[in-house]
Amino acid sequence: MSASKIKKIAVLTSGGDSPGMNAAIRAVARTGIYHGMEVWGVMRGYSGMIDDDIFKMDSRTVANIIQRGGTILKTARSKEFFEPEGRKKAYANLKKRGIDSLVIIGGDGSFKGAQKFSNEFDIPCIGLPGTIDKDIAGSDFTIGFDTAVNTAVEAIDKIRDTADAHDRLFIVEVMGRDAGYIALHSGIATGAENILIPETKTDIEELVANLTEKERRKKLVNLVVVAEGDEFGGANEIARIIKERLPQADTRVCILGHIQRGGSPTCLDRLIASRMGYHAVECLMTGKTNVMVGVVNNKMHYTPLDKAVKAKQKISEDWFKIVKILAS
Amino acid sequence: MSASKIKKIAVLTSGGDSPGMNAAIRAVARTGIYHGMEVWGVMRGYSGMIDDDIFKMDSRTVANIIQRGGTILKTARSKEFFEPEGRKKAYANLKKRGIDSLVIIGGDGSFKGAQKFSNEFDIPCIGLPGTIDKDIAGSDFTIGFDTAVNTAVEAIDKIRDTADAHDRLFIVEVMGRDAGYIALHSGIATGAENILIPETKTDIEELVANLTEKERRKKLVNLVVVAEGDEFGGANEIARIIKERLPQADTRVCILGHIQRGGSPTCLDRLIASRMGYHAVECLMTGKTNVMVGVVNNKMHYTPLDKAVKAKQKISEDWFKIVKILAS
Amino acid sequence: MSASKIKKIAVLTSGGDSPGMNAAIRAVARTGIYHGMEVWGVMRGYSGMIDDDIFKMDSRTVANIIQRGGTILKTARSKEFFEPEGRKKAYANLKKRGIDSLVIIGGDGSFKGAQKFSNEFDIPCIGLPGTIDKDIAGSDFTIGFDTAVNTAVEAIDKIRDTADAHDRLFIVEVMGRDAGYIALHSGIATGAENILIPETKTDIEELVANLTEKERRKKLVNLVVVAEGDEFGGANEIARIIKERLPQADTRVCILGHIQRGGSPTCLDRLIASRMGYHAVECLMTGKTNVMVGVVNNKMHYTPLDKAVKAKQKISEDWFKIVKILAS
Amino acid sequence: MSASKIKKIAVLTSGGDSPGMNAAIRAVARTGIYHGMEVWGVMRGYSGMIDDDIFKMDSRTVANIIQRGGTILKTARSKEFFEPEGRKKAYANLKKRGIDSLVIIGGDGSFKGAQKFSNEFDIPCIGLPGTIDKDIAGSDFTIGFDTAVNTAVEAIDKIRDTADAHDRLFIVEVMGRDAGYIALHSGIATGAENILIPETKTDIEELVANLTEKERRKKLVNLVVVAEGDEFGGANEIARIIKERLPQADTRVCILGHIQRGGSPTCLDRLIASRMGYHAVECLMTGKTNVMVGVVNNKMHYTPLDKAVKAKQKISEDWFKIVKILAS
Repeated sequence: MSASKIKKIAVLTSGGDSPGMNAAIRAVARTGIYHGMEVWGVMRGYSGMIDDDIFKMDSRTVANIIQRGGTILKTARSKEFFEPEGRKKAYANLKKRGIDSLVIIGGDGSFKGAQKFSNEFDIPCIGLPGTIDKDIAGSDFTIGFDTAVNTAVEAIDKIRDTADAHDRLFIVEVMGRDAGYIALHSGIATGAENILIPETKTDIEELVANLTEKERRKKLVNLVVVAEGDEFGGANEIARIIKERLPQADTRVCILGHIQRGGSPTCLDRLIASRMGYHAVECLMTGKTNVMVGVVNNKMHYTPLDKAVKAKQKISEDWFKIVKILAS
Repeated sequence: MSASKIKKIAVLTSGGDSPGMNAAIRAVARTGIYHGMEVWGVMRGYSGMIDDDIFKMDSRTVANIIQRGGTILKTARSKEFFEPEGRKKAYANLKKRGIDSLVIIGGDGSFKGAQKFSNEFDIPCIGLPGTIDKDIAGSDFTIGFDTAVNTAVEAIDKIRDTADAHDRLFIVEVMGRDAGYIALHSGIATGAENILIPETKTDIEELVANLTEKERRKKLVNLVVVAEGDEFGGANEIARIIKERLPQADTRVCILGHIQRGGSPTCLDRLIASRMGYHAVECLMTGKTNVMVGVVNNKMHYTPLDKAVKAKQKISEDWFKIVKILAS
Repeated sequence: MSASKIKKIAVLTSGGDSPGMNAAIRAVARTGIYHGMEVWGVMRGYSGMIDDDIFKMDSRTVANIIQRGGTILKTARSKEFFEPEGRKKAYANLKKRGIDSLVIIGGDGSFKGAQKFSNEFDIPCIGLPGTIDKDIAGSDFTIGFDTAVNTAVEAIDKIRDTADAHDRLFIVEVMGRDAGYIALHSGIATGAENILIPETKTDIEELVANLTEKERRKKLVNLVVVAEGDEFGGANEIARIIKERLPQADTRVCILGHIQRGGSPTCLDRLIASRMGYHAVECLMTGKTNVMVGVVNNKMHYTPLDKAVKAKQKISEDWFKIVKILAS
Repeated sequence: MSASKIKKIAVLTSGGDSPGMNAAIRAVARTGIYHGMEVWGVMRGYSGMIDDDIFKMDSRTVANIIQRGGTILKTARSKEFFEPEGRKKAYANLKKRGIDSLVIIGGDGSFKGAQKFSNEFDIPCIGLPGTIDKDIAGSDFTIGFDTAVNTAVEAIDKIRDTADAHDRLFIVEVMGRDAGYIALHSGIATGAENILIPETKTDIEELVANLTEKERRKKLVNLVVVAEGDEFGGANEIARIIKERLPQADTRVCILGHIQRGGSPTCLDRLIASRMGYHAVECLMTGKTNVMVGVVNNKMHYTPLDKAVKAKQKISEDWFKIVKILAS
């Protein structure tokens, strides 16, 4: 399929949802329609492609959604798509409508599926990084991270009110199975004493020593932010150890959970989603296919889909010093 | 102590903190000062009274706090105050400063202590209902409930975004060990299918039947809100049963936890806290002592402190019909 | 039309929009459908009734709207409906569908139209008080007030941050052409020094004297909240006078405007809207027609539509004392 | 003054306040104290330096402020500091305390003053870009911009609710006397049809033609976002013209005003403020003086104070295409 002849784009959201996906869908739809293409929406990710849950979008379909959390196309994880049989069915459903290209908003797992699909059926695919975890190589931002981290910050601000009223020690768990960005950013922004993330080894002795010293100094609020994927365990495990080692502290656990996935997207998430959605169509038009659209150093950046993998980035040393010094 | 000669008021916050306590402290302080009295702040509830952590407040002490969550006086639960020895110490600390009256912002447990203290030492006490649970006899509102329930609603709105994107069933646990008000109000306001509260018997068969039927109809979002004190157990226990009985549902748990205690108070909480604080001082001036200040049918209402107990109110039948019909 | 035979309800929103209208529409629709009736939506208030912009609603039509500001039925002010010719057209459009009853969510102007319409065509009408101004006789709450006043409070909190940073005097204008409730409640909740409302005579000399004295005492923040309908004029006029009389003050104006009409409704607004919508249908079923459904002292209260007029309520003396004392 | 011997730092906020200034103050104070320095706070910018309103800070001074809008040091514009006499007084007040370095959080005007002061008295100065306008050369971010633009977005989202309910055309004015960043970002993020900014020539004929065409297509919401400094005039002037040329549109104006300056800072603003504050002290320690600390391409970037001027940046062509295409 020569990219220059793109006439019908299908767009879908896949994997975990993230705020801003709707803004990206809107941008893909309106940019495609503006250039005279048809744009089709696929429901529930690859599952809808296999089950033939596909509809033609118009400009109105995406009216008044830029500010909404979730995804109007719904999302899912499809096991079937990882079988050749599933992809064959999916292709048949695109083909019978003449759909000749695909935009996938999701994470690295979804991109892998897209790459396979494209190899097999010569359908140009564009990926947009939609994940709250911000852990995809090839983009400084992912759609949803800024909203998720602000949700975490607002929640921890509230917890801090009650922590301060009671002189309690709170262990707050934020999302991030493989990446500590939400923990790191929200922890610094809320003045957490300790931040435990998968990217660094958690030294539990140092943590206990630090908290003991704070306890001794009667420091008013003690707040530990831990990523769910920290190698030492989540908030419950950390709290268990602290209660054992520091029984005099009034220790509580808060697991923020799925509130971090929802909510109206921030300005930044709407902007990057709009920009990426616009460029997804530009890519298809100019033949730059099978890439993930990213933003690096405030410029568009294109990464081959099979290189757009989950990236355990090295966190700058700076940040660790800042955490240590500012929480004192 | 004749109430008409009140010259020095001490104010404290006791028990669990709730948003709006600062607005009440401000109102007590400014109204007292306006009438030429001294107002003293006691830190950490009855503990600070025993430990002599008491300071003189002026108008500036309470500047710029009406909008803040938590309590500038901090709060605690004091076991010592429930011993005669503890109350004796507390009294000595008031006496040496000439403090002749006490305003307690807290829950029914705190009021019981105040009643005892007042009986023993002839210190007129006024109680203000400060609890997010709204379960105190003698007032339609308690300071903090409106904020807590709005925090719950905002959180569940976010959860609904992601529930909807994935067609998931969410079991959300809100606060309320003895009372289901937060669950009931936030559940109705977010369109929950089922709301499980301590005030009613939870029929797990009916719940499963209801969810099964919704599942069958492919109802898009399924949301169950459960009060932590539901007699059947919290969200984790409910989810365990549902997963067993309805394994095809993609069921997740969210425990909102302490975010419900913090945050900037709503307009309503600031208003009733201000009004109650103002009337606390009025009560002391007019000799209406050892009462809890409440609002019933939009008028001030005074309940003897020993009657201001935790009230398991009968929830109106109306609400249950509304839940059933509107979530359909 | 005998009420007991109600089979088809039309619902519309009319006049200025207010947050919570969607929750009321949802409740009317779902309660009606639950009882086996048809429920029809009328677009743009009476205009849509005249222009035949009417559609049948089902349970899905109102899914996922309880949390949304605005109104999915849109709203308008219709001059034509106040002419007999207009009402005749409107009736014809109902009649041809067999619609036999009407629920109007709006203000007193809309209720007057409904009363006239009902008198002429024997269509039972139910009114629900939807206005941010809270100035309708027969209900303690109106749908939208609580959201509007919280929006005002959040905005003024932000203004206070910058006022405080610069030691500035801010004159903030909130909505309320005939009623000062938004001004009064938001002013108390944000600690405003002065609150100017239509219900009381504004004494400009006293205002200037008060501000001059505060200026002298170097009181940190000075905040005046004025209702747009204050008899002395809005914020710009008040600021003009203050700048003349108190030129040393660094005086700024902020007119909050239409942000007060939008936004996701608060828990309280969703609850009363749901409750009122539910009871609107109950009323039609039990023959209690041509009334406005209200809530007084936490119980349902029904006011004949022609008595549900704009009410300039007497503000309690209490509140004025509280404003004066607490802002000191 | 050799930078390596820095012992006492003074920190101040100057010019218009912006959210995140407190986070920067906290970072300067704690980093300085951590390295064994004294840190002094100057009240009300250069005015407090002249009036000797200077106090020693400790770690507690900046506790619990990272999440607060405004600035605990207050801010002001000082004319006196632009006179040699004023600067001489200011220097004397620093000297008598042995203060040997200065961190200024503010805009380009404040940096000019700092540069002059440093030249005259050999006091090393570090500038941190604190302005909501994001228009300073040498940094991709300024402290406060992200919060201000999100406040604007949330406000416009609310306005859109009511615009949509009434099919109204809203002209919303946001801050930005010389720069259109707030307008551009908030306009794209809210799906505005037109965005008028100082950086581009406003073609009023095109605007009217565009709105007329939208009106004709019955496009539901029409939203124009205009920066206060647009060369054609603010929202009132634009509305005046539109009302003349498009009288059938129901046109309203909203001027967001000072709410954009306040509020709890976003995660991003807290992070960059913390990072910049930390590096301000690092600069003083390593002798990198009389620079503004910025962040460019996610790396620290240092600009000589006299080059850190207000920058009318060229807005990328991309964004204009995106506005045009996505609002269709």
